[in-house]
Amino acid sequence: MKLQKNHKILIVGLGLLGGSYAISLAKQGYTVTAITRSQSSIDYAMEQGMIARGAAFVDPALVGEADLVVFALYPHVFKEWIKENQHLFKSGAVITDVTGVKSCIVDDIQTMLRPDVEFIAAHPMAGREQSGVQYADDSIFRGANYVVTPSERNTPEAIELCEDLGRVLGFARISRLAPKEHDEIIAFVSQLTHCIAVALMTCTPAGGEHTNRLEEYTGDSFRDLTRIARLNDEMWSELFQLNKYALLHQMTVFEGELNRMRSMLELDDMEGLRAMMQKSTARRALFDKKL
Amino acid sequence: MKLQKNHKILIVGLGLLGGSYAISLAKQGYTVTAITRSQSSIDYAMEQGMIARGAAFVDPALVGEADLVVFALYPHVFKEWIKENQHLFKSGAVITDVTGVKSCIVDDIQTMLRPDVEFIAAHPMAGREQSGVQYADDSIFRGANYVVTPSERNTPEAIELCEDLGRVLGFARISRLAPKEHDEIIAFVSQLTHCIAVALMTCTPAGGEHTNRLEEYTGDSFRDLTRIARLNDEMWSELFQLNKYALLHQMTVFEGELNRMRSMLELDDMEGLRAMMQKSTARRALFDKKL
Repeated sequence: MKLQKNHKILIVGLGLLGGSYAISLAKQGYTVTAITRSQSSIDYAMEQGMIARGAAFVDPALVGEADLVVFALYPHVFKEWIKENQHLFKSGAVITDVTGVKSCIVDDIQTMLRPDVEFIAAHPMAGREQSGVQYADDSIFRGANYVVTPSERNTPEAIELCEDLGRVLGFARISRLAPKEHDEIIAFVSQLTHCIAVALMTCTPAGGEHTNRLEEYTGDSFRDLTRIARLNDEMWSELFQLNKYALLHQMTVFEGELNRMRSMLELDDMEGLRAMMQKSTARRALFDKKL
Repeated sequence: MKLQKNHKILIVGLGLLGGSYAISLAKQGYTVTAITRSQSSIDYAMEQGMIARGAAFVDPALVGEADLVVFALYPHVFKEWIKENQHLFKSGAVITDVTGVKSCIVDDIQTMLRPDVEFIAAHPMAGREQSGVQYADDSIFRGANYVVTPSERNTPEAIELCEDLGRVLGFARISRLAPKEHDEIIAFVSQLTHCIAVALMTCTPAGGEHTNRLEEYTGDSFRDLTRIARLNDEMWSELFQLNKYALLHQMTVFEGELNRMRSMLELDDMEGLRAMMQKSTARRALFDKKL
């Protein structure tokens, strides 16, 4: 099943990501509606032509007419929402999400969901340091990755629809991972990197009083490694907790590698260090965004 | 002493940084010459109007006429060069550098240098993943920091000249640090961040076979944290070794902070984690480049 122009798409949670979905879909002629907590976000999105209609409450009409519902909520809010409002879905509706953790979400939602509605999870790997619909911008999807995380309960049709949504939004690469694999990989590429950025920003390095004015002595490397140290603590602490064991494990892997490097330096093993650097240089080339 | 338009400036080592110095200075009407190993770099720089003259050998005429000499060489090459060629300097010449470590350079060079020539060290905090004069670009100095690292042997006149060079090149912020302080801070903001990037790129995270195709599942956070994992292993291994003890110490500081975070996560101390994130968010705002 492909996304059709006559499909009605409802976005629940109109923040940075939900808003960026709305911009992209509306531009391409899809009918997009939204439900979010704040009326001012709805007003803004209407003014900007991002949505056709919207409500700052759970409007049964908006939910009941939607063929595809995209949830862009905090994980616990998403689960609560489904519990309380799933009776409003149209029979045959497909729901998807943008949540950054999957194991704890996919199984819970699929277990509680009505049998005539299907939940197919996805993780759009795009974002910004800012939050809020006013920062929404569909160019964040360009060159980015989109991961669909089906379980054995999903139908090929819903998986195909969800992948097609990613393509329509403009993602460069669409792939599939099982929820558990997704969470292990995301613990490494996303959660661990946020931990590193925060720790770099909060620790007290040697260097005396000058470290109070570190910003005068930094180059782009430190700026790059700490860009994501500016983060939404409510969301990220929840993501960390929901993926705790995978994150702890990846922390161990990373610290082991950093210690391997430390030992080489202690032993003046410059050949070993250079081999690591050559490996990292070669490998990093694969990660450039193809715009 | 300010930089004068009639000052003759010689750049020794015409790579990314030396070339970017040349571009900026030539644009502003200074007479720039260069000595570097490869004739093709000299030819390129002449064609591009970056230098007035140059040589692929130590030309006594170029060295003997220079009022200011900028060394953009690997640390050990820089020391060797001074030892072998310092008899060629004009009396009263000032020499400076771009080296990323200072303690091991400043004292050695100042000790061996002729008394009628002064070495004032500086670290322009700008760069790129690429090396070579063909990537030279003076826009890398915009918004960037420039740190002068005088010792007690330096004269106020040479310090002023060196700071003025930073201003002329277009750096946003010029500051001073003693060589030892510089090395501690650089171990943190620059060398540790490169270690982290390399370790992220070379470790083997949990996640099975999918980790062989990690590039399909990454977002900008991982890309940001590993941009500098593509590096010149010859230069960086030398910088690490020359600043070994400061770098090992900052590794310990960073790992301690990461472990503090790990403990909070293990104990489900979400308040503690959120407090760290709030601190990092507030602090990171200071580090934005002012362009």
